Amino acid sequence: MRLTQHTDFSIRVLIFLGVHPDRRCTIQEIAHGYDISRNHLMKVVQKLAAAGYVASVRGSGGGLTLPRDPKDINLGDVVRRMEPDFGMVECMREGNDCVITPACKLPPVLAEATRAYLDVISRYTLADLLATEDANRMRLLLRSG
Amino acid sequence: MRLTQHTDFSIRVLIFLGVHPDRRCTIQEIAHGYDISRNHLMKVVQKLAAAGYVASVRGSGGGLTLPRDPKDINLGDVVRRMEPDFGMVECMREGNDCVITPACKLPPVLAEATRAYLDVISRYTLADLLATEDANRMRLLLRSG
Repeated sequence: MRLTQHTDFSIRVLIFLGVHPDRRCTIQEIAHGYDISRNHLMKVVQKLAAAGYVASVRGSGGGLTLPRDPKDINLGDVVRRMEPDFGMVECMREGNDCVITPACKLPPVLAEATRAYLDVISRYTLADLLATEDANRMRLLLRSG
Repeated sequence: MRLTQHTDFSIRVLIFLGVHPDRRCTIQEIAHGYDISRNHLMKVVQKLAAAGYVASVRGSGGGLTLPRDPKDINLGDVVRRMEPDFGMVECMREGNDCVITPACKLPPVLAEATRAYLDVISRYTLADLLATEDANRMRLLLRSG
């Protein structure tokens, strides 16, 4: 059971912006900081921007910032918005071919479990990942230059 | 967020055996019943057998049965045993390259959420999916012949 890389990278972008609250950050430096693909990150940032999780200023001196206080960025909401689906098994997704679907009681069990999963994550905000000491350490761990 | 097809198919095999408690079932007829790949199902059954969830008798007249009462087959245990991993993001898996791992507080949040997910599923057994009316309907929905 996994989240998509898209959601993983979304949270990394928010952390990067959160540990650099004093300035704008470029996609290039975030990709370099984590040593991950800039192209992949562009799609992630587009979706984060569309969902209102990052603000973007174009042009020279432009870049990305967090438009909200990290304590107002709920991690459960981020996962809900960034994850493409929570179709834990085939019958919970489009294009389902499982023949027993009309009589099967597995989907409500998995849906209840997924709600419990998201409820736990929703107890945390981005601020919980950015305690001063952790944020300072993460800033130093990111690749620079 | 998804479970693997392997886990999905594992549960389908257990349901198939559960709705045919009076006889042995072959991999061939389970694959036919769900209209899924026999090859894929063989690997699933091997792992189910290794974990003690199905009993197999070889030869003519042989086939698969449930070695335990469905109420003693906990669905949370099945998911735990059949799912290859619960590495929700890269840093929770082998081969992790995320540079901020030593200072990042995301993994314990996701681990706590995963425990909540599995705790919910662990409240159910295979018997909960096999109430008489549901089992009768599923038996009719499976492809025969």
